[in-house]
Amino acid sequence: MKKTTPKKATMVIAQSGGPSMVINESLVGAVLEARKSPRIGRILGARHGILGILGDDYAELRKPSERKLRAVAATPSSALGSCRRKPDAADCRAIFERFRRLGVGYFFYIGGNDSADAARIVAEEAEKEGYPLVVYHIPKTIDNDLRSCDHTPGFGSAARFVASAIKGDDLDNRALGGVKIDIIMGRDAGFLTAASALARREKDDGPHLIYLPEVPFSLDGFVRDVKAAMKKFGRCVCAVSEGIRDKSGTPIAAKFAAGEHDSHGNLQLSGTGALGDYLAAYLKKNAAVKRVRADTFGYLQRSFPGVASETDRREAFAAGQAAVRAALKGDLAKGTIAIVRAKGRAYKVAFVPVPIAEAAKFTRSVPKSFIAVNRHDVTAKFIEYARPIVGDLPPCEIL
Amino acid sequence: MKKTTPKKATMVIAQSGGPSMVINESLVGAVLEARKSPRIGRILGARHGILGILGDDYAELRKPSERKLRAVAATPSSALGSCRRKPDAADCRAIFERFRRLGVGYFFYIGGNDSADAARIVAEEAEKEGYPLVVYHIPKTIDNDLRSCDHTPGFGSAARFVASAIKGDDLDNRALGGVKIDIIMGRDAGFLTAASALARREKDDGPHLIYLPEVPFSLDGFVRDVKAAMKKFGRCVCAVSEGIRDKSGTPIAAKFAAGEHDSHGNLQLSGTGALGDYLAAYLKKNAAVKRVRADTFGYLQRSFPGVASETDRREAFAAGQAAVRAALKGDLAKGTIAIVRAKGRAYKVAFVPVPIAEAAKFTRSVPKSFIAVNRHDVTAKFIEYARPIVGDLPPCEIL
Repeated sequence: MKKTTPKKATMVIAQSGGPSMVINESLVGAVLEARKSPRIGRILGARHGILGILGDDYAELRKPSERKLRAVAATPSSALGSCRRKPDAADCRAIFERFRRLGVGYFFYIGGNDSADAARIVAEEAEKEGYPLVVYHIPKTIDNDLRSCDHTPGFGSAARFVASAIKGDDLDNRALGGVKIDIIMGRDAGFLTAASALARREKDDGPHLIYLPEVPFSLDGFVRDVKAAMKKFGRCVCAVSEGIRDKSGTPIAAKFAAGEHDSHGNLQLSGTGALGDYLAAYLKKNAAVKRVRADTFGYLQRSFPGVASETDRREAFAAGQAAVRAALKGDLAKGTIAIVRAKGRAYKVAFVPVPIAEAAKFTRSVPKSFIAVNRHDVTAKFIEYARPIVGDLPPCEIL
Repeated sequence: MKKTTPKKATMVIAQSGGPSMVINESLVGAVLEARKSPRIGRILGARHGILGILGDDYAELRKPSERKLRAVAATPSSALGSCRRKPDAADCRAIFERFRRLGVGYFFYIGGNDSADAARIVAEEAEKEGYPLVVYHIPKTIDNDLRSCDHTPGFGSAARFVASAIKGDDLDNRALGGVKIDIIMGRDAGFLTAASALARREKDDGPHLIYLPEVPFSLDGFVRDVKAAMKKFGRCVCAVSEGIRDKSGTPIAAKFAAGEHDSHGNLQLSGTGALGDYLAAYLKKNAAVKRVRADTFGYLQRSFPGVASETDRREAFAAGQAAVRAALKGDLAKGTIAIVRAKGRAYKVAFVPVPIAEAAKFTRSVPKSFIAVNRHDVTAKFIEYARPIVGDLPPCEIL
């Protein structure tokens, strides 16, 4: 069994977890960077994450023209397909058997914290087995909850969708009145819901109420807040995280959810309008508001074409490039790319290789400094943090 | 009582019914055209439709700069606010009393068929009362269901949102598999749901199934169709109109809806995720598919900033201009603007004054020639019809 990476090795890259609008930027950034190196031979894109490795299902990524790859980069969702499987030791043995046959020396996995953990498992098992493999995780999650990153590729674009949607919906609510509830993705971290605040420009613009999973949610408090907002603004737009929970930590969605769980054991929150409908019905009954509507932004938040943030696109591409550059240095003690923001006024980031454990397993929540004292809004500090990542929205003007 | 329009008269304009992405184009088109005429004095925008007239709540529309008005035109939703009130004879008397005081000689009402009917009532009551008033309805509805128009301002942009959303969602479904159900606006007319077909480019692109309110819907047939699509494509994206109904004409949504009705007596279909969730649960139980998700596109379809169709914007503006030009000719036998498409290959439309009755009350359905033989798809003829109105989507490329 070889103990070192051969001079010219095959590279495998794959995507895992929920898609995003810019995950293909990371894929293409990595592939185009790899194409430059004489030390990388074949470049294989495994379809549907590690399932593609286990099923020998690959796209040959030296073949497509750069022009085609750049078009793929600008396309939302995971071009190679995705999966949510966490590999065990037996999976890893099967993976290495296949990798050996293909001469794979580099493995890149683009995804969130579950995917980082999958990559960590592969790296650790490879070391145990004595299989010489450089493994790098490339960060991606619209939830913005990786501890290793100031912000994650994918977040800026999903946040841009959310802020744009809230902007339009606030204008709609201005025209017809009543209460509008918008349910926004983010199981444990409220960053995307917080980004709804970027829709505001005028003083009375919505969202008028913002509920994050980081702040315990009570139905009584909700009714009180809505009544107060209706009194103040004559209407009310609420941005509500799908992950809101009561003070015991129980998700509000668990009160009525059919109880479907994904393969990581997480309760299904997206792909259903149940939470919004529940809150709307509760308000109608208890807040004496006649017109209450609820929308659940759902999967459009991560897949809508043409609304990606330019900054997010650029950074996702650069994260892919950085992972390949770090992997070519062969530093096995590192394994993921941290996005580090420079201090100071001008927005600037660096892409720094750090140990994979910093992205795996543990997630990050919206920090207290971003949550307003009234507990149903965000602070100016959050706006300052998020604005350069999300970019300016299309201009809107009212009479 | 004067029997003729005075030489210089005040103009009142208002918006009514559901907002759209381009209804402000029509408003601004009319206002800028009116500013050119020496026969129009004050230009008043009534806030929230006829409620603003009854409540003396106006925006002075000679004041804002053209630059500001152009920015308002590009902004989604109804800048003057909206309402869903149908005036009765008593309302009309109150309206004319106020109009007399303000010297109003021209009244423009932008909206769908309910709004056209409101304008018709005002016009007829004015004649009965001997109040000299030129009334023009300016067409707007995302549902595309006015009989007077080849297509209506607002439809192209909402259709562009729907097609883009389905495009992104289809890419998402490619990555993670299973069945995705997307609920699309359109109570009686399936044009918007049909527009989902514009998302397709590759042979296996979704939507794989399209259900319009014009075709009786059966749950058994749905299960059969989904199973067949899963067999053929290994995944399935369904575009479903919120207005689907069984063969007796009962909306499927009525099977579980709480039963809220709007002021026109219509069952509330939008602003709730109930239909999607119902269909998803039914499929899980009866079609043996593990992963089923449902999203309801909701109000974003009519209000999302930055995705409007350029053709739709231009035509909405021109419809507003055309109404003012027609009104200045003072032809009381006409009262709405028809959008007429020229025959032949090149896309070209004309804006023709026609009697208001052609837009009021009765609605239009998706014609049989647009519905595929299999009853769950659209024809090439529909694509040919809709493409120039909607425009090209952002390019997407798969591996």
